[in-house]
This record gives sequence, structure tokens and C-alpha cells, in this order.
Amino acid sequence: MKVKLALLYILTLVIAPISKDLAIAQTTDALPSWNDGKTKQSIVAFVEKVTTQGSPDFVPPAERIATFDNDGTLWAEQPMYSQLFFALDRVKALAPKHPEWKGKEPFASLLKGDVKTALAGGDKAILEIVMATHAGMTTEAFEQIVKDWVASAKHPKTGRLYTEMVYQPMLELLAYLRANGFKTFIVSGGGVEFMRPWTERVYGIPPEQVVGSSIKTKFELRNGKPAIIRLPEINFIDDKAGKPVGINQYIGRRPIAAFGNSDGDLQMLQWTTAGAGARFALIVHHTDAEREWAYDRKSSVGRLDKALDEAKAKRWTVVDMKNDWKTVFTFEKK
Amino acid sequence: MKVKLALLYILTLVIAPISKDLAIAQTTDALPSWNDGKTKQSIVAFVEKVTTQGSPDFVPPAERIATFDNDGTLWAEQPMYSQLFFALDRVKALAPKHPEWKGKEPFASLLKGDVKTALAGGDKAILEIVMATHAGMTTEAFEQIVKDWVASAKHPKTGRLYTEMVYQPMLELLAYLRANGFKTFIVSGGGVEFMRPWTERVYGIPPEQVVGSSIKTKFELRNGKPAIIRLPEINFIDDKAGKPVGINQYIGRRPIAAFGNSDGDLQMLQWTTAGAGARFALIVHHTDAEREWAYDRKSSVGRLDKALDEAKAKRWTVVDMKNDWKTVFTFEKK
Repeated sequence: MKVKLALLYILTLVIAPISKDLAIAQTTDALPSWNDGKTKQSIVAFVEKVTTQGSPDFVPPAERIATFDNDGTLWAEQPMYSQLFFALDRVKALAPKHPEWKGKEPFASLLKGDVKTALAGGDKAILEIVMATHAGMTTEAFEQIVKDWVASAKHPKTGRLYTEMVYQPMLELLAYLRANGFKTFIVSGGGVEFMRPWTERVYGIPPEQVVGSSIKTKFELRNGKPAIIRLPEINFIDDKAGKPVGINQYIGRRPIAAFGNSDGDLQMLQWTTAGAGARFALIVHHTDAEREWAYDRKSSVGRLDKALDEAKAKRWTVVDMKNDWKTVFTFEKK
Repeated sequence: MKVKLALLYILTLVIAPISKDLAIAQTTDALPSWNDGKTKQSIVAFVEKVTTQGSPDFVPPAERIATFDNDGTLWAEQPMYSQLFFALDRVKALAPKHPEWKGKEPFASLLKGDVKTALAGGDKAILEIVMATHAGMTTEAFEQIVKDWVASAKHPKTGRLYTEMVYQPMLELLAYLRANGFKTFIVSGGGVEFMRPWTERVYGIPPEQVVGSSIKTKFELRNGKPAIIRLPEINFIDDKAGKPVGINQYIGRRPIAAFGNSDGDLQMLQWTTAGAGARFALIVHHTDAEREWAYDRKSSVGRLDKALDEAKAKRWTVVDMKNDWKTVFTFEKK
């Protein structure tokens, strides 16, 4: 009997962590920052039906692809996209090497602190700023620039790091989906190499599961050492109709669930929900002027207009941030 | 005691499969189709050092990225690329809808069965054939065309399905790496949408881990139904210097191990081995005229010349197919 008891003891040591994990998955609330109600119920109901063996809606784990927009869906995008703040900081840092910028828009206005005039040039101005700040270096050098900025730059309103301005309920949602066999991807209009250096640490999403806009790059041997150089030329814009194209190109499989917050996500949600079987589409509606921002149809950043109408018509899940979320930002958690 | 015994029994049921897996991983040969010798030893030595906790060469699982060329590395590429056989079959199938092809090269020669004259037009001829056969339909329609072809077309020499002409030792290597926490990717000059429909079933590599060449696509609503249409325009060529660019663009992380067989893989191997820490590069040298094909420096398909020299200079692992592999194709297995 002694041998059997010893064996039992050993087995218990091995099995304990497993059974503990199972227990957690089954008994605790995986979405504690979501208020109880229709929104939370719709998420849980979808996940349960696609993961229940024998359910007519069961989806094998390999096909449980979920795609998330980033700006306004996983982290804040007001008063303007974080990547634009990054670009402006880079213009300031690079200005000493570019004396010609003092007489050249959009740089001249930017350096005077007049962002509004600088951006009055529209897409062309933004493109010039992006190319001047995002190209011309190796991919490794750019990665380090992003890491340094993310570790130090502060949001003008909250004074927090940009990576602290991620939505706690969405972090829980990402983890909940992964715990249920989903593979979570970012599909964002933002630059892919601006996101990859920190998405694994912040969202648990590894670089190879980040799809985004990109500029062209070139491989070359520099003094015999291989390098990839970033070129001042657009490669791919992962926004609007570009999102399903990006999903097809990078992931090669149609998602069964997609999460966005603006008209830029509409085609991704259309593509996702048009597939056969159970599908899920969710839109984060920014309704909380106090804890975050309230904006939709009239906003120049993250406009939500057509997608809001289509969400209502097609009964997609719409998060009312003010009422559905107990906590907004991760930094609010005590 | 009865309760304890019952508990022991239940725990044993749960633990048995786990301990069995552990036992297999530790005691059996994960690479049975590889002859013992330097080549096999170099693979096992690399995997053991990067997976041994506390080893100076230890690499965390998230960074264990391994990239594999496809044509000539995972499956046969002689007497010409399988995708070219596919394209030729498509030309025949589509000919009734294209009466003009009878008077137009490269189609006229192809339809007479004169592949040599058709391909004498070089890259331009190949591009015309690819565009005529790979574009103009939805991504879903193309996926089905590929699946049907792969399920029925036979290789002219062996009479086998193309997906049976995959290398048994490489399948074992893929599985061995995955069992050791590696994430395995294909990085091939072949069309990404020609590979994705079958790589998961044949290699255990899901669509989102396949990088390849691509044509442009467009999202649109067709009668209100979302579709992605394949356009007759090159998007990306994932060959030679395009391979590190593709790795950076799609995976966003430098591999620690890369596997190829031709000069088209040289830059991928350079990029992989130039990273810090332990790195592994392997070239499959086709030396077996009897069981497969013997070709290298003079071959028009899968030329291995510069990469063979660099492999020797840099002491990369070179597989001598004739002497290193007990079995070549999966269909040889009894």
C-alpha cells in the first residue's frame, strides 16, 4: 500500500495544477470588468456555442480565428492616433539633422507646435511626416526607436504611457478567447512595425499575429552584414476594404469573430460575418466622455457612422462603453 | 481506502496519456528516417541546446521560429515546379473559353503539348500563364480549384499525387521541432494561395504560417455579398532577397532556424544566421538520382550554387539526400 500511496502523492502533484486550471476556467468570471447584461451575454453565448463539442455551431480550434482592430478598440485613439504622436515626437528629435524643415510644410508648423496647420495638408501632409520619421533606417533600428518611445512618451491628457491606455475589458476578452482555443490577431490601420515591438507584452499577441499597414523594405548586405532597410514608399494600407484583403493575405483564413470601433472596420466585420456557421461581430462605441471620450458619427478620428447603422441592422453586438464597462483603462485598476 | 483507490484510478486515467507522451518524447527516435551521422547529430544538437533551460543558448519558446522553403525542401520540384504543372492543367481546362489562345503564345504551344517552346518566352511567358490561370476569380473559388487539383493530379514520373511527393524525413523534422516548442513556417517562392489549402493537412502547418508569393486582391460586395477577387497583378515575390523581406513583413520576427535547398533560399539563411545567439541553417542537397533527382549548380529548377559554397564556408548543415535519408518520399513508407 505504501507504494500506491506514494504514487498517489506523485500523481496528485502532477494533476493539481491541471485541475486547478480547469476549475478556474469553469467557475470564475473571465470578464470581471464587463457589467452583466446583454453585451457580455452575447460574447459568452457565442464562445460557449462554438466551443461546445456536439453543438451544431461547434468550430474546431484551428478555425477559431478572432481579429481585433487596435486604435479605439484595444487602446485609446483620442485626441489623435498614438502613432501620430510618435511621428510628431520623431520630427522634433530629427529636426537638428534637417535644417530645411524650418521652411517646409508640414514640418515648419509642427516644429512651431502648430499641429493643426501642419495637418491641414491632409493625407499628403501625414504621408510626408510618416515617411520622414518611419523610413530610412534598418528594421532593427526602428524597432528600438519604437521601444524607447513606448517606454517613455506620455499621453497629453492622462500623463500615462500609451501602453497603459489599453482597455482592461478588452484585455480580459483577449485572454478569455485564447483560453477557449481562439487564436487572436490584430488587424489594424496602424503601422505593423509600430505595433509589433510591444503587442506581445501588452496584449499577449505575438508579432506574427499582427497585421497592419506597412511601407516597403529592402534586404541588403551592408559590409557583409544582412540588413532590412525601410523605404519611403507605401506597401499596404490595412484599412477599410484593405482589412479583409490583409486578413486574406496575412492570415489566409476567414475569422469567425471580429472586433472594431469605426467605419474603418466595417469591411472586416462584413467579411467575417459573411462566412458559413456561427459568426460574431462587435463594435466598441465610445460613449463615455468622463472616463474616456464620447465620439461617433462626426469624429475625424475613429468615425463610427455607417458601421453603427449596419451593426443595428444586422444585430451585431455594440458595446456601450459607459454602461458596459466597469473599468476602462488598465491603469484604473487598483 | 476505497475512496483513495478510486481516486488513484481516476488520476491514472488522466495522467496516463500525459506520461505516455513524455516517455515517447524522451526515449524514441523522433527522426527515424534520418540515418545516424553528422547531419542528424547537428539537428539534434541544435534543438537540445536551445531548449535546455539554463543553457547559455536557451531560447524562449516564443522566439523558436523555424522557416522552411517548400519546393525542393519539403516536396519535390522536378522536372518542374508543381505549381507550373497546375497552371498547365488549368490552361487546358480553360482553353474552350479562350479560343484566341490557339493563335497566341505561350498558350498555343502549351495546348499542342509543347511545354518547352511555351516556356522559351521565359519569365514573361510564365507570368502570362500564371495570370491567366490564377486570377479573375474569388479567393474561395481559387481555393476549391487548388483542392480539386491536389486531390486528383498525378506527377508525370511517379504517378503519385503531388502531396505524396513530400519528404518523409522533413515531415519528421517539422514534427520534432514543433514537439520542442518551435513554430514552423513555410517561406516559399510558390503562390501563397496555392499552398494554404493543403499545408495544414500535409505538413501540419496552418494557413497563417505560410508565407509565399502573391498577386493583388480586391474586396468588393457582389450583389451585397462580400468577396475577395484575385487580380492579374503581382503583389509580392517571395524569393531570394524577397524571403527575408517576406519574413519580416509576415512573421515580424527573425527565425532562429531556416531550411532551404537552392540559391533562392540563400538570403533567408543569411538573415537567419546573422541574428544573435544560437542559429541553425540547413540545405537539402539533391544527390539521389535513383530515388529522387540529382541536381545542383547547373539546374534551371532549384539551382544550388552560391548557397552551396556559402554553406561550406559557413559550416551550415548540408543534407546529402542519398546518404542521409533512409526514406525519401512518404509514399515509400510501408
